[in-house]
Amino acid sequence: MRRALELAARGPYGPNPRVGCVLLAPDGTTLGEGWHRGAGTPHAEVAALADARERGAQVRGATAVVTLEPCDHTGRTGPCSVALLDAGVARVLVAVADPNPVAAGGADRLRAAGVDVVTGVLGEQGVEALGAWLPAVRGGRPFVTLKIATSLDGRVAAADGTSRWITSDVARRHAHALRQQVGAIVVGTGTVLLDDPSLTARAVDGSLVEQQPLRVVVGSRDVPPGARLRGPGGELVQVRTHDPARVLAVLHEREVRHVLVEGGPTLAAAFLAAGLVDEVHAYVAPVLLGAGAGAVGDLGITTISQALRLVPNQVLPLGPDVLVVATPQHPPGGPAAPAPRTSTEEEI
Amino acid sequence: MRRALELAARGPYGPNPRVGCVLLAPDGTTLGEGWHRGAGTPHAEVAALADARERGAQVRGATAVVTLEPCDHTGRTGPCSVALLDAGVARVLVAVADPNPVAAGGADRLRAAGVDVVTGVLGEQGVEALGAWLPAVRGGRPFVTLKIATSLDGRVAAADGTSRWITSDVARRHAHALRQQVGAIVVGTGTVLLDDPSLTARAVDGSLVEQQPLRVVVGSRDVPPGARLRGPGGELVQVRTHDPARVLAVLHEREVRHVLVEGGPTLAAAFLAAGLVDEVHAYVAPVLLGAGAGAVGDLGITTISQALRLVPNQVLPLGPDVLVVATPQHPPGGPAAPAPRTSTEEEI
Repeated sequence: MRRALELAARGPYGPNPRVGCVLLAPDGTTLGEGWHRGAGTPHAEVAALADARERGAQVRGATAVVTLEPCDHTGRTGPCSVALLDAGVARVLVAVADPNPVAAGGADRLRAAGVDVVTGVLGEQGVEALGAWLPAVRGGRPFVTLKIATSLDGRVAAADGTSRWITSDVARRHAHALRQQVGAIVVGTGTVLLDDPSLTARAVDGSLVEQQPLRVVVGSRDVPPGARLRGPGGELVQVRTHDPARVLAVLHEREVRHVLVEGGPTLAAAFLAAGLVDEVHAYVAPVLLGAGAGAVGDLGITTISQALRLVPNQVLPLGPDVLVVATPQHPPGGPAAPAPRTSTEEEI
Repeated sequence: MRRALELAARGPYGPNPRVGCVLLAPDGTTLGEGWHRGAGTPHAEVAALADARERGAQVRGATAVVTLEPCDHTGRTGPCSVALLDAGVARVLVAVADPNPVAAGGADRLRAAGVDVVTGVLGEQGVEALGAWLPAVRGGRPFVTLKIATSLDGRVAAADGTSRWITSDVARRHAHALRQQVGAIVVGTGTVLLDDPSLTARAVDGSLVEQQPLRVVVGSRDVPPGARLRGPGGELVQVRTHDPARVLAVLHEREVRHVLVEGGPTLAAAFLAAGLVDEVHAYVAPVLLGAGAGAVGDLGITTISQALRLVPNQVLPLGPDVLVVATPQHPPGGPAAPAPRTSTEEEI
């Protein structure tokens, strides 16, 4: 399964899950390997069967080790459950059951045909390997990462609106790596008009990477004709609404699994207040500004007991800056109802 | 010298330096040990000589290993240089030369009397062991640490002014440990009226530690009669000015070596703008507020190139929070003149 997970990681981020598959002979010899290379291409199981055929290997009686439950669904490709049955596979080890109601059922079909199926093999690592895809398919909406890049006193720009750059190039490179994993980058019209961002995913050398995320502008104001957003990069999508749920519905429809909300404060506040942020990436730079826009607009929080608490998952120094990755304490998709941390009347 | 540094660390923080001394026989045997236990008590060298006497050890011809240059000054105690000469010490190893013009000259006097004096032995560790005392004596004003405790979006309080608690108890305990090392805690009258802090140094069990820092209130408004600041704790000192330099002059006069500025935003901005902050301790909690006072008031910074840049020295996770310790990029005591980090016109 570790090998299958390695293979899965070779696949691209996108609408489909990253899946790996290894076919093993009863004596443990590898007969074939495959991974999913993106929508419209063969699934990992089918790719592994093809690899075994090319090698002239005998698959009958083999074990298929696959990171996600084989699909039982004819979409752009045929059902993997049937392909494995036809090939005579005797045993299937699965890391994670398929949460997609349309595609699930592969394990049941295989079992009904007499194949020995074991699920949950390295399940935790399997979940991790699927990344945003799993919660997105389970939750029926894209997984949402909110990125903020602030000074030590929480400013995302100086008083005159300038913000290039608060964080270091190390932090910005890190943020570009994340852009390469998401299906869409979302900003408000205010950010478009103020910063004229290009919202592209770039390699370390500054060149555009092949697969670009959608560039999504939320709000009713128009994107100016000469805006960088109209230049090279991902498709420009304007969603003329202020409702984050509507934005996510549009992107779910387009099979976006992972959305990166990049600003500004008003949009960040709208997503947070709607309980539609699954993870916050806060890049904090050792800089003080004393004035300028804050990272997050009004959340309707008036007193400390209503504070939106997050659970930190990671604290990562990046050059002079620090990245804090944290999860808001409310169920994804549900309303924001953070619990007060403490009511102790301790003295300062 | 390592042993002398260990001994130095036993001393209390206060107006006088923490110093340790070991007397060694020519064969390396320890003859006596001493450290300075605070103003008015014998210096480390004298304490070590007394220890040797008690042990009945012969000090003549010995080596004195001492973390700070022996004083040559009769203050509350006599000059250590003379005490070492009188005892017949043949060699003196010193970590750090005394920066205090009043007390310095011990090495010269010893050399003039034929004693072999070597300075700079483990000099870096010696400087570290002296902490805030060394820059305070060198600079002629207390070393200033600015403490801020903010949400991830840079707020020090919610919209209604409540702030108990943004950070976790782990972070607050850490902050209390720092209070035990400083000579004074400084706040503005706004913070006194809003938060009614007690500004005491407390042990983990909540009890007051023996040595309490001065509690200094800056500004012209009165401290209310029933304020916690008038309760148990350090002496209450009101400095009716808005000039941070004046505040430090008053505290230097009182032999305070280390000042902790704890708020609020206006006072923090005044110290920063005056270039009188030597170190920032920023406790950042994984909390979002969206509104409320920022950590730092107006610094007169209008555009990003004027940002006050800091050099991070430490990034320390504390429970769910992160402590960033950073040094403003301008000389202590000098004007704030931060250099712009970059002018690259890179695209977002």
